[in-house]
This record gives sequence, structure tokens and C-alpha cells, in this order.
Amino acid sequence: MEKKISSAVIRRMPRYYRQLTELDKEGVERISSEMLASRMGLTASQVRQDFNCFGGFGQQGYGYNVQTLRKSIGVILHIDKGHTAVLIGVGNLGRALLRNFHFSKYGFEVTGAFDPSPAQIGRVIGEVKVRPLDELEEFVRQKRPDIAILTVPGGAARETAQQLVSWGVRGIWNFTNIDLHLELDDVPVENVHFSESLMVLSYRL
Amino acid sequence: MEKKISSAVIRRMPRYYRQLTELDKEGVERISSEMLASRMGLTASQVRQDFNCFGGFGQQGYGYNVQTLRKSIGVILHIDKGHTAVLIGVGNLGRALLRNFHFSKYGFEVTGAFDPSPAQIGRVIGEVKVRPLDELEEFVRQKRPDIAILTVPGGAARETAQQLVSWGVRGIWNFTNIDLHLELDDVPVENVHFSESLMVLSYRL
Repeated sequence: MEKKISSAVIRRMPRYYRQLTELDKEGVERISSEMLASRMGLTASQVRQDFNCFGGFGQQGYGYNVQTLRKSIGVILHIDKGHTAVLIGVGNLGRALLRNFHFSKYGFEVTGAFDPSPAQIGRVIGEVKVRPLDELEEFVRQKRPDIAILTVPGGAARETAQQLVSWGVRGIWNFTNIDLHLELDDVPVENVHFSESLMVLSYRL
Repeated sequence: MEKKISSAVIRRMPRYYRQLTELDKEGVERISSEMLASRMGLTASQVRQDFNCFGGFGQQGYGYNVQTLRKSIGVILHIDKGHTAVLIGVGNLGRALLRNFHFSKYGFEVTGAFDPSPAQIGRVIGEVKVRPLDELEEFVRQKRPDIAILTVPGGAARETAQQLVSWGVRGIWNFTNIDLHLELDDVPVENVHFSESLMVLSYRL
């Protein structure tokens, strides 16, 4: 059933999850589709349609239980699956992610970080030890991380991603400015494009 | 007219811009709405509808001139406006942006970077000199940067953003994990949420 759900709906699910996490923190126990929609700049009917793609989570006229709904969406997003990740490229962005991004909130654990630079190798950043890049293949083949976080220079993105996939990585979180989805048809890639949000901001100025 | 365009359409415009930039680099001169749609995972009719929101850019049965279309979308996104930006918070993420993000590609120039840490002040990162945070107000009031790039710790996000807006900043590019749009109604905020793309990837695994 999940296969038929449009990518626009899928992309809204993390936004619902984030809003519900905030509502839960604020102590809100129950929310109507109207209120949830209004917080997110959507319509109530869109919220209900989105949720109906997954069988619906609420009762008519009663609203949604915030914690239950958050948990259900978490299950849909596989946040309960205990995924593992390796990070490749411990430059500024890689270090920022290792230090400040709350992987565990989204069900991920970073089990290894890799860099070619002797200055980085051996450092422990956000509890993760940086290993030499030439140990990456063995690590991936043995530890089978679910995803790779690509924070390498753009020029190395394609080759690194292709190697990782050939070694068994099942998904790529791509922070390089190179679009990878065309080459890696069978493996999901999420490209993080900072530029798109900057252009939306530019439009709105 | 622009005011009536839905945010979903607006959010697709940077994606078109990026695809057309790649097509131009590949030497493609002309493209049909079908081909463009297929590269982006959309339908041809959606592409035509999106472009019709801006008056349409092509001729029936003839396709779009890649360079002309790219330029037209760039104008819509105000990439030709010569915007300026200040960056607040020269941690790992701030440094990554200053060093590696191609601001000029999107019509932006970073005119100042600010941090409270003596270890950062005076450094030149990606051609931008890091200044003490206590000079920020004077800088913003005098130089009138269009936007502020917020790469401060989450705890400082709200106060910093409110100050910047009171001093005259017209937009916020927010990399903290704090959602700011609710507080800053008159000033556009683009929140960059790494977690959303990680959750979409998690779903697709």
C-alpha cells in the first residue's frame, strides 16, 4: 500500500512528526486537523487526506491524540527501526553533523566516520572516532551500516556513492552539491540542497 | 499576481532552476515539458501548470529554450537582485557555509560574519572576516544586509533573530533546529531542517 503514496505526501510526514514533537513538548494532548493544518500552512482537508493515505489516525469531530499520532507517524517513518549510518568526509559540515545533529531522535546511530586526512584520523567527534578512508570498505562490508552520510567534496561524490552502494549501503544522505539520484536507481538518495531554501527566501524578500 | 501562487509551486521553482542549470552545463539547448518533468519526478502537465502561474515560458509543441527559461526563473527568484547577507555563528556549520557554499551563484554576497568567540574573531573564512558579535548591531544598521544566516546554537536563535529583525534585516535563513516562522510574521524565514530529509530517507529504506 505504501508504494502508491505520492512523494509530496511522504515529504509532509516528517513535518507532521516535527510539529507533533513540538506540540508534545508544549504539553498539548489533543489537536484538531484544523489546528494542525494552521500551524503548518496547510488546509484541514489536506491533513485528513494525507493521514487517510495511511489509514487515518483520528476520529471525526474528536481530533488527534498528539502522542499517539506522533508515535504512529514515527513508525511510518521507520524511526523505531534502529538504523545505523557511516559518515564520509569529516570537514566542517561533517563535524557540524557529528557534533550537533541529534541522530538518535530520528532512530539513527552513527557507527563510523571516515576521512583521508591524517589531521582528522583518530579524533573523536560527537562520540564517533574518525577512521582512515582506506578502512571504509572493510567497515561497510562487516558492519553493514544502513546509510552513508556524504559530506565529501563534490568531485568525490559520485565515485564514493557508487562504491558505498556496491559494498552494501542501502541509502545515501547526500550533502554534496552533486545530484545523485539519477545514477543510483535502486538505492534511495536524499539530496540536501541548501540552495533551494535560499532561493525560496530570495523570492520572498 | 505573485501573491496568489501556492507555496508548493514556489518551492518547485528552485528545483527547476537547478535542473536547468545542469541541462545548460550539459549543453542541452531545448527541452520539452515531458523531459523536464521526467528528470524531476513530476508530470508534464504539472510543469506546464507551474509555469503558467508566471505567464508560461514556452510555445506549444516546441519546448523550452533552456537558457532563456533558466534566466526567466532566475528573475522570478530574484537571483539578479544582488542581495547581501550576514552570517551569525561561525561554528562548524557557519564555516562550512562560508568556505563551500556558492552564494554568488544565487545572487548573494556575504558581507560580514559574526561570532562571540575570541578564537574566531579576526579569522578570514572564505574571504569573509569574522567580527565580534558586539559589533553586529552597528554593522546591520549601517550596511543594511538583506538577510541573516543563523548558524548559532538553538538556544540563541529566537533572541538573535528578533534583534536582527528589529535592526532591519529583511529575511532569515535559519539553520538552527528552532522553528522561527511563528514569531516573525512580517519577515520571511526559511528553516533548513536536515531532519526532514533524513526521515524521508528512513521511510524509503
